[in-house]
Amino acid sequence: MGRVTVRRPVRMLTPNGERTRPDALAAEEPLELRVAGTPLAVTMRTPGHDVELAHGFLLSEGVVGGREDVMTARYCAGTDDEGRNTYNVLDVALSPGVPGPDPGVERNFYTTSSCGVCGKAALDAVKLSTRFSPAEASFPVTPETLSALPDALRERQKVFASTGGLHAAAMFTADGTLLDVREDVGRHNAVDKVLGKALLDGAIPAADRGLLVSGRASFELVQKAAMAGIPMLAAVSAPSSLAVELAAEQGMTLVGFLRGASMNVYTRGDRVAGD
Amino acid sequence: MGRVTVRRPVRMLTPNGERTRPDALAAEEPLELRVAGTPLAVTMRTPGHDVELAHGFLLSEGVVGGREDVMTARYCAGTDDEGRNTYNVLDVALSPGVPGPDPGVERNFYTTSSCGVCGKAALDAVKLSTRFSPAEASFPVTPETLSALPDALRERQKVFASTGGLHAAAMFTADGTLLDVREDVGRHNAVDKVLGKALLDGAIPAADRGLLVSGRASFELVQKAAMAGIPMLAAVSAPSSLAVELAAEQGMTLVGFLRGASMNVYTRGDRVAGD
Repeated sequence: MGRVTVRRPVRMLTPNGERTRPDALAAEEPLELRVAGTPLAVTMRTPGHDVELAHGFLLSEGVVGGREDVMTARYCAGTDDEGRNTYNVLDVALSPGVPGPDPGVERNFYTTSSCGVCGKAALDAVKLSTRFSPAEASFPVTPETLSALPDALRERQKVFASTGGLHAAAMFTADGTLLDVREDVGRHNAVDKVLGKALLDGAIPAADRGLLVSGRASFELVQKAAMAGIPMLAAVSAPSSLAVELAAEQGMTLVGFLRGASMNVYTRGDRVAGD
Repeated sequence: MGRVTVRRPVRMLTPNGERTRPDALAAEEPLELRVAGTPLAVTMRTPGHDVELAHGFLLSEGVVGGREDVMTARYCAGTDDEGRNTYNVLDVALSPGVPGPDPGVERNFYTTSSCGVCGKAALDAVKLSTRFSPAEASFPVTPETLSALPDALRERQKVFASTGGLHAAAMFTADGTLLDVREDVGRHNAVDKVLGKALLDGAIPAADRGLLVSGRASFELVQKAAMAGIPMLAAVSAPSSLAVELAAEQGMTLVGFLRGASMNVYTRGDRVAGD
């Protein structure tokens, strides 16, 4: 539990010759998430902040909308051959009256009668499941504030610095304060950990926060931000077509290629303006 | 179908001012994969090479081992509101005698009696499902040959050049020839397309080929290479701990941080040697 890096010998070849020495690797382990004892999903994740990960995952899937929807979240079952808990199975008990997840929740079949399976159906599926709309949130941020975020994130990516192998995500406020940074081998997991932390803090819907991610902006990351009511997603790298379409439909500001003083604003540019 | 980029206006802010102009985005659309008419999985992918993607996915999941295991793969169902096929549903008919996928195939519950859910169980699950072992393949490659691969890949990443938004994968031969390059918004999809192409070419098990990926090496990418009998995985970025463990157990050479003349060799370094 909490082993975020693993040391292992590696043979390093460089133009100046080669040597073998111990190297730090980003830890990856399966996490089985259960709801009321029933397995719901398995994700390959970096151990640590698993309770947050579970809350964020359930928020993203539309199962919970606030911390009061979860009664308990605890590690269960699973001991290794020396009887130690592996901390790889987390069971969540929902509060009385909160319906459990749709058994098909992990299948994400984006189908409508109008187009069969298509991007439009995926957008509609999110529209049906969101509890909070980021469209009305004001959240004005200056380009200068946005420009400073990637460096601030990198400075706090402790595990990335030693392994080069982790995605990172964090929420930020309109004045550029970076909140809790979470790292994971999976970019979805890093975001789920951030969302789960906010949920546990009672900060969902997060209409007064943006979400920063170290990589690209896919449909699924915009979906997660939408489920948390976040009005702005800023990504260091490129967005996909469907990510931009979903952000537009949800009234979310989507910023991509956030590098130095340059950035692309794809949707709801009214929130990005000078003083 | 085949729409790998989508144009959309974007507001670009730079230190020299701002302008709004059309930008090319990497296309992302859902693909529903069916086997004998039964939905198996939905993946968000970049349209194109979907038949290869389906073959590679089924190879990775252990459902098929050669092209003769698939009878037909065709687009079905799904027309948009103007009656055009959306090309987002692909139905695969397996050959007579080939068992369909385990209904739980997409759940990947890595559980054993010895540790419950843990990395060891994930390694064991791959051991049980692999048909081909890369351990005995010789596949000697020089560091100089490996060093040239990332630039060769980048030169052939046509869509990345215009969007910055795609992962890429390709197989390579021991003399450094880069075979078919595939790009996708999802790194797993890019690899599945490459594996599917090889399967359709009758080249699986690919004991005489390496697999090159533009990003990081996760457990699941090593798993896919192992399922195809590939003896070497070379990644431009970092591997995870479980990726290295799986490569070691499968007798696969894992190279990471392949950048310029530098690289890290994590496992089976005997295949990486000078002339």
